[in-house]
Amino acid sequence: MSTRRRFLAGAAAVTASALAAPALAQNLIEWRMVTAWPKGLAGAGTGAQRLADRIGVLTQGQLTIRLYAAGELVPVDQNMTAVMSGDAEMSHDMSAYYISKSPAFAFFSAIPFGLMAQEFNAWIYAGGGRGLWDELGERFGIRAYAAGNTGARLGGWFRKEINTVEDLRGLRFRIGGLAGQALAKLGVNQVLMPGSQILPKLQSGDLDAAEFMGPVNDLSFGFQNAAKFCYWPGFQEPCAALQLQVNSAKFDALPTTHKVAIEVACTEENTRSLAEYNARSPIAIAQAVTEQGVMLKQFPDEVFKAFGTASGEVLSEMIDNGDDLTKRIAASYFAFRQATLLWTRIGDQGYTNMRLLDYNYPKGG
Amino acid sequence: MSTRRRFLAGAAAVTASALAAPALAQNLIEWRMVTAWPKGLAGAGTGAQRLADRIGVLTQGQLTIRLYAAGELVPVDQNMTAVMSGDAEMSHDMSAYYISKSPAFAFFSAIPFGLMAQEFNAWIYAGGGRGLWDELGERFGIRAYAAGNTGARLGGWFRKEINTVEDLRGLRFRIGGLAGQALAKLGVNQVLMPGSQILPKLQSGDLDAAEFMGPVNDLSFGFQNAAKFCYWPGFQEPCAALQLQVNSAKFDALPTTHKVAIEVACTEENTRSLAEYNARSPIAIAQAVTEQGVMLKQFPDEVFKAFGTASGEVLSEMIDNGDDLTKRIAASYFAFRQATLLWTRIGDQGYTNMRLLDYNYPKGG
Repeated sequence: MSTRRRFLAGAAAVTASALAAPALAQNLIEWRMVTAWPKGLAGAGTGAQRLADRIGVLTQGQLTIRLYAAGELVPVDQNMTAVMSGDAEMSHDMSAYYISKSPAFAFFSAIPFGLMAQEFNAWIYAGGGRGLWDELGERFGIRAYAAGNTGARLGGWFRKEINTVEDLRGLRFRIGGLAGQALAKLGVNQVLMPGSQILPKLQSGDLDAAEFMGPVNDLSFGFQNAAKFCYWPGFQEPCAALQLQVNSAKFDALPTTHKVAIEVACTEENTRSLAEYNARSPIAIAQAVTEQGVMLKQFPDEVFKAFGTASGEVLSEMIDNGDDLTKRIAASYFAFRQATLLWTRIGDQGYTNMRLLDYNYPKGG
Repeated sequence: MSTRRRFLAGAAAVTASALAAPALAQNLIEWRMVTAWPKGLAGAGTGAQRLADRIGVLTQGQLTIRLYAAGELVPVDQNMTAVMSGDAEMSHDMSAYYISKSPAFAFFSAIPFGLMAQEFNAWIYAGGGRGLWDELGERFGIRAYAAGNTGARLGGWFRKEINTVEDLRGLRFRIGGLAGQALAKLGVNQVLMPGSQILPKLQSGDLDAAEFMGPVNDLSFGFQNAAKFCYWPGFQEPCAALQLQVNSAKFDALPTTHKVAIEVACTEENTRSLAEYNARSPIAIAQAVTEQGVMLKQFPDEVFKAFGTASGEVLSEMIDNGDDLTKRIAASYFAFRQATLLWTRIGDQGYTNMRLLDYNYPKGG
């Protein structure tokens, strides 16, 4: 390129930049949101898109979010690393996916025998969780918000009945995270695989049992076609919180209104996601029982207690081996759980139990 | 002023106006939000202010909300009328306050033996409630959003024990709404009065029992000082949803971003309010028991069943006497309740019950 042409090209660039000034004045920003979900996954995936869209509208189009399905921009296990480096500004996923970076991340999505969705929200928004989450995030250059929740989970889909703790021994069980470690103490072989691979393995007998995401997603994957015994209640994740994590430096550089828009949109999505799961799960479960021959079975007390003790051991080991911040987060979480037991018992739990007594009441429909 | 000076002044005005154009283009709007809450009432009152502030920030200061405590702008029983006429653009209160306009409004805050907070949210956001609420609101020129929730309530504070249905006869009980009508069928004298007047009446013996807003607000009013028996579970309002109602015509004239900001801020407040109550209630209840001699008592099954049947009768009468829309709303609500019973039982309820089994688990603190 001649000097003159380089000069003209430079001038053209300056002019274009000047013409773009109004747009620049509005500070139009486009961010990338990676996710841990296959494209369009009902619940988590559609929720992530709804969240991205909402941020765009709330910022009057000044901050638009482009969504990437799992693996589309970076390998899915690199989502948090991408947010830390700024290769993606945001990731919609679960905090517990990142326990290799710090075990404390488990407390911000799901703990075996831990808090239910409503209790988790109470801890995060008003019970001390928020500040601790910020402190943990700061160590990794991220800031995270609750941005979805699956609500209650099933205890798992089993090919045979579980009557005693002995029946667990040698079971090949697709179950994630800390609960899988707990079950290993009871002789279970923890198996990990994506949701889409579970059904064939149940059918071939390579798997004896599986749990994945709760009634809506489990049934859409067809687990009930190979494992008729649906055990309840779930203990592995009494709720599973989804999160939006954001690169801290980029977040801090945003105008206040954009920061608030992100935070508020996450809280809205947190609520809508849980509402959606809780509206769809009753229908999914009823259909499974009446049309697909699913047998709902409650775990025997002795089996459930064994799950509880094994989970307690895994969690105690995690705390013992954890750093000071992990210990403080665990102390806050378990103290909140302990305090909430009585209130839940005389509140929602007491009501749900007595609501099932026999009396005349409208059934609607 | 000379012609030349007028011209210059005019020019200056034009210039100032041109300079102010961005501000004018922003369409600065100030709205009035009346509320049903005494100034600063913890929970509902502080939540209404938080909601108002949030809308201001989300709209980048273009829509600011001025809050009025109960009775400050209009008599508190005129809040909805003021929103309908446009004398106030918004009101933060409870839908059930307006059952004299339509009994169907009860379904959007609290129904005896009805949905709990999480179930209510599922019905509103994802189970058909939203569309029906809009249809009801349209008849009155309002649009309403869930914007707070007390969560579970107590069954009431009693001066003496309740062992049989007979013990209810002649009881002077401060209890609101449909539950009060149900108790009247069992011989209870329903008494209505503001929260601040309850304690003296319990102390003087003019009242035998009272319920108001759940542990946090009840205990701050001091009911436990005159009525030591705290019965659970609450049945009168398994949750009480708070709402923001908005004048429809004024809402429709807003830019889309402002409409979305109002809706999203309401959903955030809905979640934060419930979280706050659920974080504070465990502490309030524990203190009441350990420091204030409160006796927690579970209602006997026979008494609770009598509450259920009486509530069912009141609700059936309401449906029978209601217009077509009331019947359709009731049908949707009760069908949702019926469908959710099984899912709740094997989900959150099953978990909370089995979580209380005896096993070793971290207690935090």
